[in-house]
Amino acid sequence: MRELGEHIVRPPRSLLETAKDWSAAPSSPPLAILEPRSSEEVSQVLAFCNRLQIPLAIQGGMTGLVGGANSMPGEAVLSLAKLNRIEHIDTTAGTALIQAGVTLEQLQNAAEEHDWFFPLDLGARGSCQLGGNAATNAGGNRVIRYGMMRNAILGLEVILADGTRLERLDTVIKNNAGFDLKQLFIGSEGQLGVITQLVIQLQPRPTARCTALCALDGLTKSTQLLKLLKGVLPELSAFEVMWSDYVHESARLQGLALPFQAQYPIYVLIETLGHDLSLSVSAVENALQQALLDEVILDAVLAQSEQQAQKLWSYREGVSELLTALKPCAAFDVSVSLPKMQALVLDLQEELTNRFKEQHHLFFGHLGDGNLHLISGPYPDPEDLHALEELTYQRIAAYGGSISAEHGIGVVKREFLHHSKSKEEIDLMAQLKKLLDPKSILNPQRVIPS
Amino acid sequence: MRELGEHIVRPPRSLLETAKDWSAAPSSPPLAILEPRSSEEVSQVLAFCNRLQIPLAIQGGMTGLVGGANSMPGEAVLSLAKLNRIEHIDTTAGTALIQAGVTLEQLQNAAEEHDWFFPLDLGARGSCQLGGNAATNAGGNRVIRYGMMRNAILGLEVILADGTRLERLDTVIKNNAGFDLKQLFIGSEGQLGVITQLVIQLQPRPTARCTALCALDGLTKSTQLLKLLKGVLPELSAFEVMWSDYVHESARLQGLALPFQAQYPIYVLIETLGHDLSLSVSAVENALQQALLDEVILDAVLAQSEQQAQKLWSYREGVSELLTALKPCAAFDVSVSLPKMQALVLDLQEELTNRFKEQHHLFFGHLGDGNLHLISGPYPDPEDLHALEELTYQRIAAYGGSISAEHGIGVVKREFLHHSKSKEEIDLMAQLKKLLDPKSILNPQRVIPS
Repeated sequence: MRELGEHIVRPPRSLLETAKDWSAAPSSPPLAILEPRSSEEVSQVLAFCNRLQIPLAIQGGMTGLVGGANSMPGEAVLSLAKLNRIEHIDTTAGTALIQAGVTLEQLQNAAEEHDWFFPLDLGARGSCQLGGNAATNAGGNRVIRYGMMRNAILGLEVILADGTRLERLDTVIKNNAGFDLKQLFIGSEGQLGVITQLVIQLQPRPTARCTALCALDGLTKSTQLLKLLKGVLPELSAFEVMWSDYVHESARLQGLALPFQAQYPIYVLIETLGHDLSLSVSAVENALQQALLDEVILDAVLAQSEQQAQKLWSYREGVSELLTALKPCAAFDVSVSLPKMQALVLDLQEELTNRFKEQHHLFFGHLGDGNLHLISGPYPDPEDLHALEELTYQRIAAYGGSISAEHGIGVVKREFLHHSKSKEEIDLMAQLKKLLDPKSILNPQRVIPS
Repeated sequence: MRELGEHIVRPPRSLLETAKDWSAAPSSPPLAILEPRSSEEVSQVLAFCNRLQIPLAIQGGMTGLVGGANSMPGEAVLSLAKLNRIEHIDTTAGTALIQAGVTLEQLQNAAEEHDWFFPLDLGARGSCQLGGNAATNAGGNRVIRYGMMRNAILGLEVILADGTRLERLDTVIKNNAGFDLKQLFIGSEGQLGVITQLVIQLQPRPTARCTALCALDGLTKSTQLLKLLKGVLPELSAFEVMWSDYVHESARLQGLALPFQAQYPIYVLIETLGHDLSLSVSAVENALQQALLDEVILDAVLAQSEQQAQKLWSYREGVSELLTALKPCAAFDVSVSLPKMQALVLDLQEELTNRFKEQHHLFFGHLGDGNLHLISGPYPDPEDLHALEELTYQRIAAYGGSISAEHGIGVVKREFLHHSKSKEEIDLMAQLKKLLDPKSILNPQRVIPS
């Protein structure tokens, strides 16, 4: 294992990059494609479209997984692609002022050039845009340490449906002068306004990555492991849980062997990001030795090189191979409280195996965030796929979980939103929509059920 | 629910001692004091008051510093004091479900009993309530590591002005199913709804505290020190900057000597919270040695005992002594981007010293958050005090800063809000208020300028 230097911002691909066949709604040819080059132009476009009641599909990098950015009949497209300037990186404070169309990868690279680090990371990093990441409150593998996109946003400029410009490009964490209006727009999937500029908090650049794979005899042990590691590893940046089926199917499809002699019910991939490799390795070793002593884990392997680290990640990152192999399939992105996760998974495993005997049902997730993923397939019959979705979301709702942890609602989960939001909440969402976009020109027929 | 009359049980508590003369608006005897004992009762009270258009002052622990909770003529008081149950602490996931009237200290203690930790901390911990901490998005000394109150909130139950109950008691970080409505209420100072229950994210309980005081030759060096320490000390939980005058006046009033031979322009108090004292000490020692080598700091002293740590903190915590000694005085709580802070302080120092020659102007702050505090006094003439406020806020605005980093707007900063929010933002705040509280019964005449 060596110092990773520049490579540290290139961990493996993330989730569901290729799940578009499942998740994306059909797209219609747009009336027009509008590509403003400045916030002023966005304001002019919106004022114009609002006056004429021209509905718009707001498009960032088009990498969303719920079809929200696809244009529908009668819509024009408002693309943020030309707003692609990194305006300023403040090397003292570690903040970046950028336009909304800057890609995640552009910012990651620019931060690195200035000896800073932008920790948010997704498989779609090369195409997804930060305005879209903000509008959908993107997550990823490092939420356990650095939080969601919401936590990285210090300031926003937003253009409202009527062209009104709200500019609050704060560069500090603390600002309690009046309502924190930016919170309204983050994660609202473009329903309430168009994000045009952002101020992003960067983080100190880590130079040492330490990766390990642990074998456990059950999910309960993984929550114990999580608590143990959070207490002693402040550098812990990933905690990825994989059920046995998932790991073995992923390994098989990629032609990989597992680094353990035996099979185990649960595997947990952990990673720390720090500044001193020997300190990090010794901290991880000590923590895992403690976990072995306490019988929280049964075995563990620590990557001794960057190659080995990548190999450990590849079990987790076999998602695209699995999605291809199980086509047509469904990929769920849900969350549920840790104490209920065990029961939910057992319940789903039983119910799905009974109902859909021919299919694989593979579980994995970011356990530290309560985020569970499930890939289930193949389903040659679309009606089965719909029945699977209805059944799964009902179960999630019964356990008080969320039908969308990271990916949002868009078009494809709109009819299921009632499983995760009450009538009162959906009413308030609709009222906010009406207040801020009374003519419903911003991403209509998405997110909020009709 | 009983008749409203039965809830008139006690006179309103007096205002907080510290900074009362400066920050608190006058309080009038309320029409009635309502002390509901459940979320249902809060809902009934609000529905009733909304129907009859009875304006309410929403009261938590009455420890705010901007007079927002004081009742005005014609108002009844809605107190959350009887909603003081810790409903559940989940020891697996480290989450707490609590009612809004639970005090900060109650939760801190309960977390500790369950081997968890609630990092938010304020001087008013014994009286301030978590509903109030949420409604005002409280900060404190540990924001650099753990974030503001907003970051600790996983779920909220809110009652709207008409009695509608919005219950979303999530226990996980990740929920992108529809708008994250709780964000609307956090930091809105009770303008949009009444918080009745919260789910709080706890943290692993630290068992080792390492405290040091550093001496620097200027503010620029302190931003370098901050970057250096953030890079190598993931456990860094406090970074408190104090200008020379502040430290020496604070020490003098408390009869304390400083641990250095010479006087320095800037002092920085740092602290880490970890799990292994020898590891923490060695990490802090290494970091400070590096800082000395790089001439980022000129001297440093590391506490060798809990007693010494408390002594180092006492320079920083001489605030109440200073507020008493400089009475009547003004205490400012503002924020500005790091690169502009040096110029802002120099500018203010010069202008204030010229204009108010007889007064002390003492600067300190949570530099890691861009949060600057200033105590200035004594001002026997109230007109001078008002002139000072106007002058200071104008300067803050000129540097693009916020007139309230932590304390909110309430009554006393309402007329100054235009320095930190544009007309468009204030308009949107008013529209949101009108949407959610059309009869303006929740904390009227506060926060939003008329």
